[in-house]
Order: sequence, then C-alpha cells, then structure tokens
Amino acid sequence: MIADTQVAVSGERLTVTYSLHAGPKDALAIAEKATTEQTIEFPPELIGDDGIRDHIFGRIERFEAVEERLHHADISYAVECSAFNLPQLFNLIYGNISLFPQMRVERFALPQSLASVFKGPRFGIAGLRETLAAPKGPLFMTALKPQGLPANRLAAQAYEFARGGLDIVKDDHGLANQPFAPFRERVAQCCDAVARANAETGGNTVYAPMISGPSEQIVEQAFWAKEQGAGALLIAPALIGFDVARRLAQDDALGLPMIGHPAMMGSYVVSPTNGFSHYAMFGQVMRLVGMDVSIFPNFGGRFAFSPGECRSIMAGCTDPMDHFASIVPSPGGGMTFENVPDMARFYGEDVMYLMGGDLHKQAGTLEENCWKLRALANVPDGGEVR
Amino acid sequence: MIADTQVAVSGERLTVTYSLHAGPKDALAIAEKATTEQTIEFPPELIGDDGIRDHIFGRIERFEAVEERLHHADISYAVECSAFNLPQLFNLIYGNISLFPQMRVERFALPQSLASVFKGPRFGIAGLRETLAAPKGPLFMTALKPQGLPANRLAAQAYEFARGGLDIVKDDHGLANQPFAPFRERVAQCCDAVARANAETGGNTVYAPMISGPSEQIVEQAFWAKEQGAGALLIAPALIGFDVARRLAQDDALGLPMIGHPAMMGSYVVSPTNGFSHYAMFGQVMRLVGMDVSIFPNFGGRFAFSPGECRSIMAGCTDPMDHFASIVPSPGGGMTFENVPDMARFYGEDVMYLMGGDLHKQAGTLEENCWKLRALANVPDGGEVR
Repeated sequence: MIADTQVAVSGERLTVTYSLHAGPKDALAIAEKATTEQTIEFPPELIGDDGIRDHIFGRIERFEAVEERLHHADISYAVECSAFNLPQLFNLIYGNISLFPQMRVERFALPQSLASVFKGPRFGIAGLRETLAAPKGPLFMTALKPQGLPANRLAAQAYEFARGGLDIVKDDHGLANQPFAPFRERVAQCCDAVARANAETGGNTVYAPMISGPSEQIVEQAFWAKEQGAGALLIAPALIGFDVARRLAQDDALGLPMIGHPAMMGSYVVSPTNGFSHYAMFGQVMRLVGMDVSIFPNFGGRFAFSPGECRSIMAGCTDPMDHFASIVPSPGGGMTFENVPDMARFYGEDVMYLMGGDLHKQAGTLEENCWKLRALANVPDGGEVR
Repeated sequence: MIADTQVAVSGERLTVTYSLHAGPKDALAIAEKATTEQTIEFPPELIGDDGIRDHIFGRIERFEAVEERLHHADISYAVECSAFNLPQLFNLIYGNISLFPQMRVERFALPQSLASVFKGPRFGIAGLRETLAAPKGPLFMTALKPQGLPANRLAAQAYEFARGGLDIVKDDHGLANQPFAPFRERVAQCCDAVARANAETGGNTVYAPMISGPSEQIVEQAFWAKEQGAGALLIAPALIGFDVARRLAQDDALGLPMIGHPAMMGSYVVSPTNGFSHYAMFGQVMRLVGMDVSIFPNFGGRFAFSPGECRSIMAGCTDPMDHFASIVPSPGGGMTFENVPDMARFYGEDVMYLMGGDLHKQAGTLEENCWKLRALANVPDGGEVR
C-alpha cells in the first residue's frame, strides 16, 4: 500500500475521446484499465483514498454505446500529468495503451494552460494564402520525382512547375541526401530554378525541400535550406519524431511554412480499432506539431482512404481548436486529372491539391499541364462543395 | 516520359521481408506496387529501360505463399536509396506503405555498407552484464511508481530497491517533468539514494531516469542525468523519435546503457496485417537505434502478447545481425511473483525481468521482496529453458 499522498493540481484536465471496440462490459473494463495504465501504471488497489486517486488517475467522464461492439469513452487527465511537453502528452494520451488492440484515440481537447504551450501552425490557411499571394481558390502543389534523377534535372522540373504557376513545388518525400542528388546540391539548384521562374513570370511559387535529418543535422539543414531560398519545408513527423517536427515549426528564427507528410504514420491510422482516427492524426496532431499543410491520401487513389475519412481530415484541419490556426488539407497519393472535378466539389476552396505523376502523363509540357490542372480545379459554378 | 537516366550505384542492396495478407494475385500486385511506391513514387510506365528502373526500383527477390491469404515477399532496395541515415531508411522500408492495410514488415537485412553507419547497442548483453557486475543469471529491473509521489518518496523507493539488489531501478516511463516530482529534483535525489544504498551494500544497482525531452532539451537532459550519477537512460523511441533515440545512443560522450520502452509503439505491432512484426520492432529496430534493453509486455500480463510473439522478440534481440550486439529482452507489463517460475523456464538466463506493482503487493518490505523475486527467478535446476 502506498501511503496517502497529497497532490497539488490546478484542477484543469485534458480530455481524450477513445473508441472501444468491444461489447459493453469489456469496453468499460478496458476504459477503466486505461485510467490507471496511462497514469499511475500501478495496481489501483494499493492506492488509498488520496490525492493520487483523486487527481492522477484518469477519470471516465462519459461512456456510451455507439453500436453493440463500439463504445466511446471520454477520459480526462490532470493537465499536470502531461508535464506540458509533447512526448509526455503523447504518452498520456496513447503511450502504453497503443498496445491495446481495441482502443483508439478519436479526438482530444486540451485546456488552455496546456494548449498555450504549443504555438501550433505559424501560418495556417490564412497565413499561407498571404505568403503564396493566393487569397482565394484552391492551392496547388507537386513533387519533384522520380528519385534517381540528378539535382540539375530535378531543378529543371522545378523550373517548369514554377513557370506553370503551382503554389508549392516540394521534393518528393523520399529525396534525402542520396548520392545521385545530394541534399545541398539539390536544394541550392531547386531554389535557384524556382527563383528564376518567379522572376520571369512575376509568380510566387515556393520550393519546399524535404528535411529529414539525421537528428544531429536536422536543425542546421532547415536553416541552410532557408538561406538558399526555400520558402517552406517538407517534414514527415513520424520519420523524424513528432516532437522534432514541433521543434522546427516553433522555431521563430526559422519561421517557414511547414508541410506535414504521412510517411510511416500509416500504422497509426489504418486499423479501425487501434491508433488514432484520421481526424485526430491528420488534423489535430498535425496542428499540434505546427504543420500548416497536412498531406494525406485522397480517396480513390493508390491508398485505401474513404471519402468519409477524407472528410473527417478536412474537419480535423479546420474545426475550432483553441488558438490553433486552421490548416490546409492536401489530398495526394494518386490524384489524376480525371478525378479533379469530383475533388473540387468534395474539397471546396481551402485545399491544396497535391498532384505528382499525372502532371507527367498529359500530352503537354509540364508547364502547360500545370495551367490545365488549375483551370480544371477552379470549378466556376462553385459546384456542390463538401 | 522521363528521359533515360544513368544512375551510379554500388550494387549493394538491403532486403526487407514483408508479409502480404491477401490471396496470391492481390498479394503479388501489392508487392509490385511497393517496389515503386517506396522508391520512385511515380508511374512506372513513364520510366524507360534505364538506370532508374534497373537500380532505384525495388526488386522482388522472392515471393511465396505461406497460407492461402498470407504471402511473403523479399523486396530489395539499392543501399543508396537509404541515404545512409535512419529517417530515410525507415521511409524506404515502411514510409508510404505504412498506409497499406495488408502489408507488414517481418524483418530486414542490411548490407555492411549501411549497417556500419549505425553503431547499434553500445553495451548489449555482454557489456551490460559487465557494467552491472552480473556475469550470469537473469537480471532484474523495477520502476519507481506511482506518478504523483514527490521526488523524495520516489527516491526513498529507489533506495529500498537498490538495497534489494535489483540491477536497474528505472523511472516509471510516465515520469517526465511534472510539478509533483520535477525532473532535476527527482533525478538528483534518486541518484543519491541509489549511490547511498550501493555504498552500504557494495552493490551495483543502476538508476535509469526517463529522458523524454522536449527536443530542445533532450540532449542536455541526458548529459545532466549522467553527471548526477545516472547509470543508464530510459528512452521511448516512438515518443521522442526513433532517430533521436539513435542519436542519444550513439553519443560517445554520453556512453550510457539505453533501455528502450515501447510507449506509443503499440500501433506498429498490434495489427497482424500492418506495421512491424514483434521480431522486427522489439528486436531489430531496437538494436538499430542502439537500445541495450528492449522492454515489451510479457504474455499473460496486462497486454495481449502471445508466448509466440514474446519468443520472436527474444530471437529478434539475439539473432545474429551484422555487428549489432545481442540485447536484453525485458518482459514487463503485469509481471507477478506467481508467473516467475514459468517465465524463468520460458526466458532462460539472458533476460531482464521488469517487475513493478507486484513488488509492492507482497507481505515484506520492498527490499525483502526484491530478494524474494531474485530467489524465485533463479531456477536452480536450469529448468526447461526456452
């Protein structure tokens, strides 16, 4: 037995909505287990009627049936348990219970004292539109591909895409520091190519290099890219660490728009009974770590996301969330010219289309195809949006 | 069409064994998709008969049926595609395809030119036994709990556990920098308490504080803890970032044993059809990032791991793997006195038992219970090991 303990807390609590994929009795038992698994990680019967039980234990605030084998539980935790930093906040929300096959994070809500620790998206939709001089209408992004091309040919592509008026030309996320197109060589040449195109057209295309480390070098890489003229950075939080992504996004001296990529993030979302909802991961988490754009696989593309999941990502990116700016959902992963009209109706205006391969498949030059894409996506009648 | 491209590569390739959870035709189609999804991420029909196709594309080296809806594919990638760093290596192994619900990493094999980039476990089983002055027999670890106790009471526990002769006393992984037991206060007091107990008993107990950041401070935290006398560090790679874990482990000036914790790693292993096998994640990945001890949930405890999965973790920790030292599997997560004899037969000698709550449940003092645990786990007749 642990001797009774006084615990000084503010009384503020964060709340996580979990789905529990089991019948009512088991679902409640799992939720109850989580209240201690995520906090004291200790036999609850060894804790008296004290401050630890009152304040440190998670608390089931709501438990309800959605279907026979689907329940929702809101569990709250003392804000102090988060230690007011991201790794421990993640641990509190989904550390050990990431090992529970039947429990998933649907969404979370942070009290102001915790939310305020995170700067969140520096630009968001509004700031990004200002930076890109694109006050309305959908935004457009492509990726420099394929891996294996030398830096000068990637830069030549970047030039054409910038001539084509795309808003952002990013590295393919697999471009790191490979010998066939070393990081510094590629970034310098692509920055120059995009600047040259902008000077010629009066455009505002931004080049976003992939920043992926290793850890010892990642901050320096980001600053170096900025010095070369990179106007945004491409970041895969699950590859470099969510808290490293946050650290880069929050760096005022860096201060660039951040484009979040889902590489190695899939295992957190593909199970319907474990991990995070699409809403939480591609919306809330991306905003928490300060991404301004959230890339995800479009429905009907190379991956298995449903329209409903894509719609929930849009909501996660734009629903009110403390001081966190709304961010730009960016569907990609096999986007084609053919499905642009459907996408335009589905996503509306506040979207950044990410088209890769299909820009290369069309008859015209890359530059021409970019303009064709833009024309196609700007549905003149406004369509049936969302 | 991309103009033909020459690509200079060494010819060395890494190989990943994936399981594909589909019938033969679909499984092969998924494997084929992965060869480009993980590399060029581009329509393969736009690539000619050139160096990119020959070298950059992943290559299916083996494809075979295991069951009607379970196939294995070995896919190799040019070592240069890894950029010889961990984030891009992870991206290559399981970046975008982490979004494939039917494809899982079973194991991987790195050529020497890539393996040699990673130092791997600095101590491993042999080095850890030397550090702990425990040349044979099982090793023992506990955690300071519950969250909510002030630093002096956690330190008092640490003292008792060290008096009890446990090899490692670690922070509970949820202890970060909470106001009720701030990081510096807790680490300093626990280091002192363990040193005092060691001085009294002549023992070698090591205290391992949880190092969880935030990123801006994590390296400094680790060094500061070492200065206070911490003899090992507790790290959760999925919380702080796998590459940050590697960076800490590889730091020669730090040079402490690393204990890997699975917090937020669960979603990578709980699905049988997505993520990583237990062998790959708790064995190979932990060794790659330089953990000396791999904590995982024991079968029959609070989590759902099976004996077979635990056995595969043991294999992943100790199978030959380039220059990577064998590391110590550390089953925890609800270990009880009652199941110690079974565990002793199952795990054999090269194991580090992680017992938390049950040490508090026994009749004796914590110190007495530690000795009782040790006696119980040292099966005198050698038992039926593994």
